[in-house]
Amino acid sequence: MPRYRLTLEYDGTGLAGWQRQATGVSVQALIEAAFEKFCQQQVAVVAAGRTDAGVHALAQVAHVDLSRLRDPEEIRNAINFHLRPARVAVLDVAQAPHEFHARFSATGRRYLYRIINRRAPLALDQDRAWAITRPLDAEAMHRGAQVLVGHHDFSSFRDAQCQAKSPMKTLDRLDVTRLGEEIAVRAEARSFLHHQVRNMVGTLKLVGEGKWTEMDMAKALAARNRSAAGQTAPAAGLYLSGVGYEPR
Amino acid sequence: MPRYRLTLEYDGTGLAGWQRQATGVSVQALIEAAFEKFCQQQVAVVAAGRTDAGVHALAQVAHVDLSRLRDPEEIRNAINFHLRPARVAVLDVAQAPHEFHARFSATGRRYLYRIINRRAPLALDQDRAWAITRPLDAEAMHRGAQVLVGHHDFSSFRDAQCQAKSPMKTLDRLDVTRLGEEIAVRAEARSFLHHQVRNMVGTLKLVGEGKWTEMDMAKALAARNRSAAGQTAPAAGLYLSGVGYEPR
Repeated sequence: MPRYRLTLEYDGTGLAGWQRQATGVSVQALIEAAFEKFCQQQVAVVAAGRTDAGVHALAQVAHVDLSRLRDPEEIRNAINFHLRPARVAVLDVAQAPHEFHARFSATGRRYLYRIINRRAPLALDQDRAWAITRPLDAEAMHRGAQVLVGHHDFSSFRDAQCQAKSPMKTLDRLDVTRLGEEIAVRAEARSFLHHQVRNMVGTLKLVGEGKWTEMDMAKALAARNRSAAGQTAPAAGLYLSGVGYEPR
Repeated sequence: MPRYRLTLEYDGTGLAGWQRQATGVSVQALIEAAFEKFCQQQVAVVAAGRTDAGVHALAQVAHVDLSRLRDPEEIRNAINFHLRPARVAVLDVAQAPHEFHARFSATGRRYLYRIINRRAPLALDQDRAWAITRPLDAEAMHRGAQVLVGHHDFSSFRDAQCQAKSPMKTLDRLDVTRLGEEIAVRAEARSFLHHQVRNMVGTLKLVGEGKWTEMDMAKALAARNRSAAGQTAPAAGLYLSGVGYEPR
């Protein structure tokens, strides 16, 4: 069975997240249903990152096996047609080797977290960013973020429901930049614990507000205890922005 | 009666445009209803630009007269509270002199038109941009746009329902730039004819596709006839991005 690699964009608003759920519509279910209509074949679509409910994707990667060879462009157009009017789009399709696995072959995941820092509520970015009214110091947040970069036990930033065997992760990048009223947090790692990015962002908010110093950040990390870190930032601000693989 | 100047952001999707309509919900009606709840007073809100149905605003300006002095911050917070859950937000409120008129005092209007130029349909930018699948040459579009800059008879880019007395307008700026798959058209003038920006963008698309040259653009302008220019670009890509006033 030929294997295909899909690059996907979606608006997670109102969806139950990537993975099929007993209740709610998942991105996976929408895409599998579109393939069924296209191929008259049941398929299983496997993604690099199982994004949570309300989380968006700029470039999620997934793979699927089809019963026969198809033109990648035909697949993309047909699946996009059958996905309508869902806010899920196939950006790209390419044939992939059998050993390619969207999740297990991934060597890097990138996330973007968007904060809009202003007094007024969000009209255009409702469900697309975290609205924080208190002024945030993005430079202080960036300095605080550097405490987390590297190989650490991230238990303080790990959701209770996280299924990873180990809390040890290597965070390659955690940059905080401001452009006008928008603050972007960019995170990069081979993989993340469940809610890790949102928990790091929720904790960086304390630094941005001036309530926490870099030292408090270091203490929270060292505590290896979820209750030592800040809140979980809302899902709406999070975007899976890219997945990396070893060059073939 | 004290006069207040409001700066507004809105997502025009599903709304009937700025102006009160017999059918459909307008931005004006939403804001006036919010003021009624706040002040127990009927008000008329006057905007700088009467955006069409589906058109967005990053910084629309409007004015309103209230029966008594109020704290600008209190007005902003109260109106934003009463606007919920509409995708309309008051960014800023300031007291204004009696002679300030959001529409007639305006000396410049800026619009942004967003095109996403890619094969895949839009997931995150559905209703927020014009999706054009055929590759566009943004540099050619920019050169074509320069033909329109200056003082001209813009009849070829004027909607049949335009109520302006004269088709003569001075276009101060029409820039086309590309960043990745996104093409931004930025237009600036003291004022525009009805549908002028959308008609200019729809015509520039012909240049971007290589179907039209700068010479064709000049001919379309010289024709002073709507049928000589290109299509009206969809409302969803248009954003009123700013309004200028003489410094006091």
